[in-house]
Amino acid sequence: MTLFPEITRPTLLLDEGRCRENIARMAAKARRLGVHFRPHFKTHQSAEIGGWFRDEGVRACTVSSVMMAQYFAAHGWEDITIAFPLNLRELPAVAELARRVPRLHLLLESVESAAALDTALDAPTAVWLKIDCGYHRTGIGWDDARLLEHTAAVVGSARHLRLHGLLSHFGDTYHARGAEEVSALYHASLAHLRQAQQTLAAHGFGALALSIGDTPSCALLDDLGGVTEMRPGNFVFYDSTQLAIGACTAAEVAVAMACPVAALHPQRGEAVLYGGAIHLSKDFHPAGDHPVSYGLPVLLGEHGWGEPLPGGWVRSLSQEHGVAVLPPVSLAQLHPGDLLGILPAHSCLALQAMRELVTLDGRRIATLLLE
Amino acid sequence: MTLFPEITRPTLLLDEGRCRENIARMAAKARRLGVHFRPHFKTHQSAEIGGWFRDEGVRACTVSSVMMAQYFAAHGWEDITIAFPLNLRELPAVAELARRVPRLHLLLESVESAAALDTALDAPTAVWLKIDCGYHRTGIGWDDARLLEHTAAVVGSARHLRLHGLLSHFGDTYHARGAEEVSALYHASLAHLRQAQQTLAAHGFGALALSIGDTPSCALLDDLGGVTEMRPGNFVFYDSTQLAIGACTAAEVAVAMACPVAALHPQRGEAVLYGGAIHLSKDFHPAGDHPVSYGLPVLLGEHGWGEPLPGGWVRSLSQEHGVAVLPPVSLAQLHPGDLLGILPAHSCLALQAMRELVTLDGRRIATLLLE
Repeated sequence: MTLFPEITRPTLLLDEGRCRENIARMAAKARRLGVHFRPHFKTHQSAEIGGWFRDEGVRACTVSSVMMAQYFAAHGWEDITIAFPLNLRELPAVAELARRVPRLHLLLESVESAAALDTALDAPTAVWLKIDCGYHRTGIGWDDARLLEHTAAVVGSARHLRLHGLLSHFGDTYHARGAEEVSALYHASLAHLRQAQQTLAAHGFGALALSIGDTPSCALLDDLGGVTEMRPGNFVFYDSTQLAIGACTAAEVAVAMACPVAALHPQRGEAVLYGGAIHLSKDFHPAGDHPVSYGLPVLLGEHGWGEPLPGGWVRSLSQEHGVAVLPPVSLAQLHPGDLLGILPAHSCLALQAMRELVTLDGRRIATLLLE
Repeated sequence: MTLFPEITRPTLLLDEGRCRENIARMAAKARRLGVHFRPHFKTHQSAEIGGWFRDEGVRACTVSSVMMAQYFAAHGWEDITIAFPLNLRELPAVAELARRVPRLHLLLESVESAAALDTALDAPTAVWLKIDCGYHRTGIGWDDARLLEHTAAVVGSARHLRLHGLLSHFGDTYHARGAEEVSALYHASLAHLRQAQQTLAAHGFGALALSIGDTPSCALLDDLGGVTEMRPGNFVFYDSTQLAIGACTAAEVAVAMACPVAALHPQRGEAVLYGGAIHLSKDFHPAGDHPVSYGLPVLLGEHGWGEPLPGGWVRSLSQEHGVAVLPPVSLAQLHPGDLLGILPAHSCLALQAMRELVTLDGRRIATLLLE
């Protein structure tokens, strides 16, 4: 490992081996469960990592913006779902994508947006209704039969829209702890999604596909009976939030932020890192007794990083500073100018902030964010 | 205003008039109080906005990274403080800056870093000791007389280091509410800083300058007696956190995120925005009864934006989605595809995420982050 002496500023390290294993494991699981695999690429935003999915036979992906769809389309992806409610201010760009991408899938949740989309398109395009199964971010309420039927009817009678299925995000699972709690939330949400499916079937909209997306459910459930498609994204890297949920092991977390040690405060068991909110993001999760942890400290070594240090956590972040609580034995080994690794609380946002990754052999992996 | 029809994605709007007034007001206050004004440029990271400070006679600035120092040095700034504990992994770049920038100021808080810096430099450079006055982010404890004296002695006997003063950040004021609470925290912290100054004076280190930095104190205090220099940064834009503290009025907030409305949920009084954590950051503050608010909704109009909507707040943010709670009367006027403004919770991090600003007449203002 000759990488570390080169690192002078916070750097998002990628363990390519772990990342490829995460991809292979989830692709194999989708095949085993007979569920279509449409991974969410917002976590990595990288054409190169998209190629690692291709190596596992994946041909469909999910993105969260028109810009991201344009990027992956330019890198040869022909089956893309934009998993965000249609942004009417980007209609011309969406219509252009629909001409260029053989299998573009769009989300709708209102009659107004459906009508505007149909007017803008000049080719048949697959549409999913976004369903709110109880998470209350967005979507048509699973029990709002009137709005479900009305929107489906408008889509059904549109010239260019083809109603493909119902799509939901069971975001509550990100606040769960353990497989049992995740499973309970998954089954409650799935029951709601299937209820919406039955409501529409009773009104002549049969054979609608069901698409779900959260990493905790996709990682922890051994049966996705009734689901047509899964769209997990975070699993490609995982992070300390997924570790706290129990959706991964520490050995599966594929990214760590290498942070220069700026100062040491042994009297309060803390190291101050060059590595703050502009590197890790301000996202956090509860960890043990601490309601707010911004990540987990790890030691960097010859072949990557080790397990999270016992009792270690990131207590606070400001723009460039991070304050890591460390066990005395680890703190005693550190000096200003050393590097410490942090498993980020939210790998998607850490990647977004850093705009690139560096593999353990020092290779830079570019993303859309550098363009 | 012909700008709004052009906006298709989240866009950080800058009201240049308000921004220039914020700069003029703080520069005038520093003159009135007889305090040296060294504004922190991490909030805007823009050579052009730096020029607006020059228009007010400002010739010194603060930055939070070596990279930011290089950028402002390249844009003609000759008096720069890097207000971050010396990063030993960037020593060659720091030494190069010291040769090029006539008045470079650096922060030290350990004997090891002082020794390493002295070895790397080949020209006299001003040094501040970073003092922890109770905020416990970093710095030498104000009451750690032994470490204060030891570090000052090492700096004092170094070949190239010139001990200039004591620098602190009274970060507790960001959690205060109202002028009285900010004032109490300021005076308690200042008493600690002056105690450290006296400890060192008693050991022969006389005439040390005192530098403080937080926007709430600089905005709200009418007397900075004993302080040599102030380094506020956030005031250039302010944000909904400063509004909650009472450090500014709504009419002084100079940035707002223009967000396309993606979906409406009138039954729960919410609009879903294209505008999430990758635009606003995940930073938040308590607002009224809500422990977590990510910003305040405003209506956009001909000449900018209005006051925060009564009862409005941003309830949740995920990667691209924002969920804004709005009063029924405002919600009833909105349609998917409209724009809604959000006063961000933390303007420094919103700028960092967006990398550029757009003025109300549609002019793009570049920053270091685009380089």
